[in-house]
Amino acid sequence: MIEICEVGPRDGLQNECKIVPAETKVELITRLIDSGIRNIEAVSFVNPKVVPPMADAEEVLKLLPKRNGVRFGGLVLSRSGLERALKTDVDFLHVVTTTSDSFNLRNVKRTVEQAVGELSLVIKEGAASGKGVAGVLGTAFGCPFEGDVPFENVLKVAERFMEAGCTEITLADTTGMANPIQVQKIAESFFDAFGKDLSLGLHFHNTRGLGLANVLAGYQAGVRRFDSSIAGLGGCPFAPKAVGNVCTEDMINMFHGMGVNTGTDLPSVLETAKWMETVMERPLDGMLMKAGIA
Amino acid sequence: MIEICEVGPRDGLQNECKIVPAETKVELITRLIDSGIRNIEAVSFVNPKVVPPMADAEEVLKLLPKRNGVRFGGLVLSRSGLERALKTDVDFLHVVTTTSDSFNLRNVKRTVEQAVGELSLVIKEGAASGKGVAGVLGTAFGCPFEGDVPFENVLKVAERFMEAGCTEITLADTTGMANPIQVQKIAESFFDAFGKDLSLGLHFHNTRGLGLANVLAGYQAGVRRFDSSIAGLGGCPFAPKAVGNVCTEDMINMFHGMGVNTGTDLPSVLETAKWMETVMERPLDGMLMKAGIA
Repeated sequence: MIEICEVGPRDGLQNECKIVPAETKVELITRLIDSGIRNIEAVSFVNPKVVPPMADAEEVLKLLPKRNGVRFGGLVLSRSGLERALKTDVDFLHVVTTTSDSFNLRNVKRTVEQAVGELSLVIKEGAASGKGVAGVLGTAFGCPFEGDVPFENVLKVAERFMEAGCTEITLADTTGMANPIQVQKIAESFFDAFGKDLSLGLHFHNTRGLGLANVLAGYQAGVRRFDSSIAGLGGCPFAPKAVGNVCTEDMINMFHGMGVNTGTDLPSVLETAKWMETVMERPLDGMLMKAGIA
Repeated sequence: MIEICEVGPRDGLQNECKIVPAETKVELITRLIDSGIRNIEAVSFVNPKVVPPMADAEEVLKLLPKRNGVRFGGLVLSRSGLERALKTDVDFLHVVTTTSDSFNLRNVKRTVEQAVGELSLVIKEGAASGKGVAGVLGTAFGCPFEGDVPFENVLKVAERFMEAGCTEITLADTTGMANPIQVQKIAESFFDAFGKDLSLGLHFHNTRGLGLANVLAGYQAGVRRFDSSIAGLGGCPFAPKAVGNVCTEDMINMFHGMGVNTGTDLPSVLETAKWMETVMERPLDGMLMKAGIA
């Protein structure tokens, strides 16, 4: 059994050129829940001026159906994001930093050390409020400006985040640089460092066609939670260098072929992917939509 | 170290709408050789009326540069193909059948048993002529009309082909139905049946996005030869909804990231992929062309 964390409504739609209204996001999320997905990164509490497609976080959360066993996550990058999140009933805060100074300075004008210092307080306060807190570590498999990110640096950020109150860690391949051997090594090192019970997730982009090969390598190394995006949303050709996440239905198809339970109904997920293509009014990256279930 | 069998000039160009002249095929193959590729499926001795893009097999072979250590293969599906091949200096005959009656009847109007009977004679005569003979078994991972193809059936065809004189076997996922667990199981079963020294190759299509994940699974199971197509060109013209082969430069990028030698120069292969896009006058499927080498 693996767990899917569906990030299409957040990481996917954030990287599309067309802005989708809150009602459509809610319909998308409702459909995903109906197909069996139980962990959804639904919103982002990022500055609405910086990321307009995510400005409606509070509205989306208000409109979302409440269902037993379904968990909604929201991205938190700063104290101001935390303050917004704590006024909502979002279940999990996904607290994010990259692990490369060059990338982090360009992205949020802070070194990794500065970011981790500030975010540790955010994590503590979030955890104290009773919400779940997940730590998401970007550029964990390489940085487009620095190249390799030393594994020790990634591990150190994870330690600080877990000390502050994160109960799970997701390693993100922000710009699609991971390869299967590296995925295996990093995942095994994380289990060695934090124990086999660590709730470890992986977040891949299909930038260089390696998304599912990396998911496979992570699964073989013992990882059981994977981020993915319905229809491979997030690769709008007009967005600068955006390439979609691993595609949810393509990933489910792989796991079902391998005899691994995902808790989801693939034909129903596939229908939602096709519907999403009509919503976005452009061909999306998912392959199963074109080929059909084998 | 892995060996790439480049099938773009044959399996790729066969399924493109634009017909490419012999001189361009020769330029493509020459570029691939200059990038380090040593095994190239260059032509097909199929009926020119059925597959017009491949009608120039003899001309392409005459124009190709002769280089030490480079091997040119040609597809042979029948006795008439063999007769043409034997009049050329092609190095290897790639003798093909599918392993599913339904598929084979639609494709070449013969049951698998009938095809294997005829092709065994072709293989014997080809081997007796001094040329190398490789057996290629299509639908080895599933048939779009029948579903699963029993492993025993695939193994039986391989046995007959090797008895007749094939020195290597390639298992082909004609319509992109393979999954990594299945690849692992079939590859291991082949090594169990024929010994670890079996020259086993795998031929995947990226129909459902699993091309590189399946290559990875095959590599992990001990396979060291993989078919791929420059820029992701092509697919099987007889298979419903087939899409391109695994993309050569994307596969090289994966293996180099994993520290596995391919004997090729990736930047130079990538240049050829980009050139191929200008030749075909349409965007091709390769991902690395868009994202660049990490």
